[in-house]
Amino acid sequence: MLVPHAARALGQVLGERLSRAKSDLEQHGRSESHFPTCPPEAVAYPETAEEVARIMQICADHRCPVIGWGAGTSLEGHGLAVSGGIVVDFSRMNKVLEIRPADMDVTVQPGVTRQALNEELRATGLFFPVDPGANASLGGMAMTRASGTTTVRYGSMRDNVLGMQVVLADGRTIRTGSRARKTAAGYDLTALMIGSEGTLGLVTELTLKLHGIPEATSAGICAFPRIEDAVNAVIDTIQMGLPMARIEFVDAATARAFNAYAGMDMAEAPHLLVEFHGSPDGVAQDAARFAEIVADHGGSAFEWSSRPEERNALWAMRHNAYYAVLALRPGARAVVTDICVPISRLATAVEETQADIAASPIPGPILGHVGDGNFHAILLIDPDQPAERDAALALSHRMAERALRLGGTCTGEHGVGIGKRRYMQAEHGHGWTIMGSLKQALDPMNLLNPGKLVPDA
Amino acid sequence: MLVPHAARALGQVLGERLSRAKSDLEQHGRSESHFPTCPPEAVAYPETAEEVARIMQICADHRCPVIGWGAGTSLEGHGLAVSGGIVVDFSRMNKVLEIRPADMDVTVQPGVTRQALNEELRATGLFFPVDPGANASLGGMAMTRASGTTTVRYGSMRDNVLGMQVVLADGRTIRTGSRARKTAAGYDLTALMIGSEGTLGLVTELTLKLHGIPEATSAGICAFPRIEDAVNAVIDTIQMGLPMARIEFVDAATARAFNAYAGMDMAEAPHLLVEFHGSPDGVAQDAARFAEIVADHGGSAFEWSSRPEERNALWAMRHNAYYAVLALRPGARAVVTDICVPISRLATAVEETQADIAASPIPGPILGHVGDGNFHAILLIDPDQPAERDAALALSHRMAERALRLGGTCTGEHGVGIGKRRYMQAEHGHGWTIMGSLKQALDPMNLLNPGKLVPDA
Ligand SMILES: Cc1cc2nc3c(=O)[nH]c(=O)nc-3n(C[C@H](O)[C@H](O)[C@H](O)COP(=O)(O)OP(=O)(O)OC[C@H]3O[C@@H](n4cnc5c(N)ncnc54)[C@H](O)[C@@H]3O)c2cc1C
Ligand SMILES: Cc1cc2nc3c(=O)[nH]c(=O)nc-3n(C[C@H](O)[C@H](O)[C@H](O)COP(=O)(O)OP(=O)(O)OC[C@H]3O[C@@H](n4cnc5c(N)ncnc54)[C@H](O)[C@@H]3O)c2cc1C
Repeated sequence: MLVPHAARALGQVLGERLSRAKSDLEQHGRSESHFPTCPPEAVAYPETAEEVARIMQICADHRCPVIGWGAGTSLEGHGLAVSGGIVVDFSRMNKVLEIRPADMDVTVQPGVTRQALNEELRATGLFFPVDPGANASLGGMAMTRASGTTTVRYGSMRDNVLGMQVVLADGRTIRTGSRARKTAAGYDLTALMIGSEGTLGLVTELTLKLHGIPEATSAGICAFPRIEDAVNAVIDTIQMGLPMARIEFVDAATARAFNAYAGMDMAEAPHLLVEFHGSPDGVAQDAARFAEIVADHGGSAFEWSSRPEERNALWAMRHNAYYAVLALRPGARAVVTDICVPISRLATAVEETQADIAASPIPGPILGHVGDGNFHAILLIDPDQPAERDAALALSHRMAERALRLGGTCTGEHGVGIGKRRYMQAEHGHGWTIMGSLKQALDPMNLLNPGKLVPDA
Repeated sequence: MLVPHAARALGQVLGERLSRAKSDLEQHGRSESHFPTCPPEAVAYPETAEEVARIMQICADHRCPVIGWGAGTSLEGHGLAVSGGIVVDFSRMNKVLEIRPADMDVTVQPGVTRQALNEELRATGLFFPVDPGANASLGGMAMTRASGTTTVRYGSMRDNVLGMQVVLADGRTIRTGSRARKTAAGYDLTALMIGSEGTLGLVTELTLKLHGIPEATSAGICAFPRIEDAVNAVIDTIQMGLPMARIEFVDAATARAFNAYAGMDMAEAPHLLVEFHGSPDGVAQDAARFAEIVADHGGSAFEWSSRPEERNALWAMRHNAYYAVLALRPGARAVVTDICVPISRLATAVEETQADIAASPIPGPILGHVGDGNFHAILLIDPDQPAERDAALALSHRMAERALRLGGTCTGEHGVGIGKRRYMQAEHGHGWTIMGSLKQALDPMNLLNPGKLVPDA
C-alpha cells in the first residue's frame, strides 16, 4: 500500500468494511470495456455521508488517491486506480431516503441503482427516466452525465438532478442546488459536479426530478432499406415537432445480434425503435403521423404495441444490445465508441463510420440514441490479437475526429475517463486547461480520481 | 479614471467607441431597480470578439475592473461599477450570425435581444422561448440564468444554451459546449458560465436551441376566490402531467394594475393565465382538462382564445406587469423580490408573503411563474422616504428567509448581483466559499464585475 498509515486510520473507521482481499481489489480494478485491469490498494464500503467525509479527511492527510465506485459499468476506464489509492464503493449507501410525490422529486443515496429506484417508485405513479443500458448507480450516472433512450424527451442527468450533497477533497461537505425547480443564486455547482467523474468530489446524496408515468404509451419498430432513410426519418420527426419519448436506431448487424440473442425475428436491415407518451388519443395521433414519415422514407409498415409486456420486451432487448452484440463473437471484448453530432450531420457520420468499419478487419455493429444525434459502434476484438485492438482503436480515433469535424463531441454520454482524454485538447482547446484550473482549485493535491478527465497537473 | 493608461490604450483600439461622456456614464450606472446610481469610468462599445479580447487584455495589464452590459435590465444591481472600472456595452454586437433550421439552433452575438431574435426567426417556423419581462439581451440573459413565462415547458437559459464563446480574465478566448445536443466530454463550462453574472468571463457569442412554433396554441385566463385556490389548481395541473406551455399567477392588486394600465376588465381577484401548445386536438383536450381542474378549485369559467391577436395582447399585458404595477403609484421605485420554492410549499409561501405585505405600510402586488414555484412581490416605495425603503427591504429579507426555510432559493431568476449577496452564505454554506475559489481560479486579479455574486476575496 502506498500509504500504510492511511490504511490503519481507515480501518479504525470502517473495521471489516475496509477490504484488502484480492478478489475485492480485482473486481474494483476491472472495467466493462477493453482496458487492462488496474486494481486499487484497498476498497472502502462506507454506510453514511459522515463516514465518506472521514475517509476523505484521512486520505487527504496521507495524500492517498480516492476513487468513487458506483456500479462499475462505465466504459472509459473511469474507475481504474491508475495512480494507486483506494476505491470508495457506494453499494452500501443504497437507500431511497425520501419520495415527495407532491413535488415530484426524490432524495437518494448514491448507490441506489436506476432499476431499484423505479421499483421503489412504482406505487407513486412517478418514474425516473434516465436509463443507460446498464443498471448503473445514480451516483455514477451523475458523475458521467449519463443519458439513455428517453433523453430525447426527458433529458439526461444534467437535466434531472436538482441538487447533491458532495464531500470535497478537503473532507468538507457541501450541498449544491435546492429543491426549487430553478434558481439563479450563483454558480451552478450542481452542473459543475455532473459529469466530473469523481474528480471534484464524492457524491453522498442526490435529489432527482421525477416524472409522471404517462397515461398512455405506444411503442413500435420498423425497418428501412438504408441507414440514411432511417436517419432522415428521425430528422423529419424532430423537425415536425413530434414529441418522441424514445427513438433508437439499430443497424442490420445489431438486428442480427438481437435475433440470435433474444430470439427475435427482425429483418437484417436498419431499424428504428420508437415510443410515444401522452394521452390515449395523443399517442395514437403521434403514431399515425410517425407512420406517414416512415412511409415517406421507404420504411416498412410499423408494428405498434401498447401492451406493456410487448413494450417491456422491446426495451429490454434494446437495453441488452451490448451483450447481444458481444455474443456475436464469443470471447470478444468491446471497444465501445460514443460520438454525438448535430442532427443534420447524423446521416453523414453514421455512413462514414459504417464504411470505415466495413473496410476494417473487425465487426462493429452500430446503434444509438439517434434523436440526440448520438450513436455507438461496438467494435468486437479478440483481446489476444494486438492487431485487432489497434484496428479498433484506429477506427475509434477516426470516429472521434469525425465527430469534431462535424461540429459534435467525442463523447455523447459515456464520458472521458482515460479513453477519451486524448481528444479533450482538440475538442476544447484552452477550455481543457481551464478544466484543469478548476480541478486544481477544488482538489489542489489531486487526490480525487487522479489521471482522469483533466490534463496532468 | 482609476487607470489613465488603460483609457489611453483602450482609446487606441476603440477610437470613438470608448466613451467618457457624462450621459453615457450615468446611463451605465443606473439599474431598473432601487439601487443608487454608480457610474463606471468609461464605456466601451466593441464590435467584434477580437476587440473584446483586446479590451480584456488591456484591462488585465492595468488591473482595471471590467463589467459586461447587455440591455441593462437586470434587477439586483448587477451592472453597477461598485469598484470603478469600465463597462463593456455589447449593444453593437447585435448580429444573428447563423440560423440552422435543420439543427434547430442559432448562433448569435451577445447583444441581440430576445425580441430581435424572434423577429429574425419568424420565417423559419422556429422560436426562442426564454422571455424575461424586459427585452433583455441574450448575453445578459445567459449571465443571469434568466427564465420566463415559458420556462415551465421549454426551460430557462440553463436549458437552452448549447455553447458559448467567452473571453476570460486573462484575455484568452474559449469555446464551451458544442452543437451536439448532449455531451459528456468533461466539466460543463457552459453551465458554469450561465448565471455567473459576468464574473468569470465576457460572452462574445452564444449558440442557442430553438423550438418549433407549435401547430396550435390556446391561451386563457380565469379568476379564483382565493390565492390558495389558484395555487392548488396549479399543483393539480402539474401532477396530472398536463403539459402547460405557460402558467402565470397574478394577485388581485396586479389585476387592478392591469385594468388601469392596459384598459383590461379583470375581476379584482387572483388569476391564472395559461397557455397550451400542441396539435389542434391536443390543445383542445388540454384546455378541457384544465377547465375541470379550475372548476374543482372554485375558479371562474375559463376564457379561452386561440386567436393570435388576443393571445398576444394577453402576454404583452403580462410582460408589462412591472410597468403596470409601477404606475399604480406614480413616482414610486420598486424593490422587486424573486423567490422560488418547491411547488408543495408555494401556497404557504405566497400566503405568508401576502399577509406580511398587508401588515406593512407599503403596497406590494404579487405575481409569478407559479408553474416553477417562482413568484415576485413588487414592493412600491417612495424613494424619498427612507422608512418605506427600510420596510421594503425588511419584507424582502423575510421573503428570502421564508424561501430558504421552505427548501427553496432566494432568487429564482433575477440573480445575485449586489442585492442577494447577503443570502448566499445562508443558502449555500461552504458552497459559497467554493464559488469564491472558482472565481479566484479563473480571475485571480478579480477584474470581472468585482463586488458581485461571490464573497469578497
Ligand atoms: C451495457 C452497457 C450499456 C450502457 N449504456 C449506456 C447508455 O445508454 N448511456 C450512458 O450514459 N451510459 C451507458 N453505459 C455506461 C455506464 O452505464 C454509465 O457510464 C453509468 O453512468 C456508470 O454508472 P456506474 O454506477 O456504473 O458508475 P461507475 O462506473 O462505478 O463510476 C463512473 C464514474 O463515476 C465515479 N463515481 C461513481 N460513484 C461516485 C460517487 N458516489 N461519488 C463520486 N464519484 C463517483 C467513478 O469514480 C467513475 O469515475 C453503458 C454501459 C454498459 C456496460
Ligand atoms: C420589467 C422587467 C421584467 C423582468 N422579468 C424577468 C423575468 O421574467 N425573468 C428573468 O429572468 N428576469 C427578468 N427581469 C430581469 C432582467 O430582464 C434579466 O435579468 C435579464 O437576463 C438581464 O438581461 P440584460 O441584457 O438586461 O443584462 P444586463 O442587465 O445588461 O446584465 C446582466 C448581467 O450580465 C452581465 N453581462 C451582460 N452581458 C454580458 C456579456 N456579454 N458578457 C458577460 N457579462 C455580461 C452584466 O455584467 C450583469 O452582471 C426583468 C426585468 C425587468 C426590468
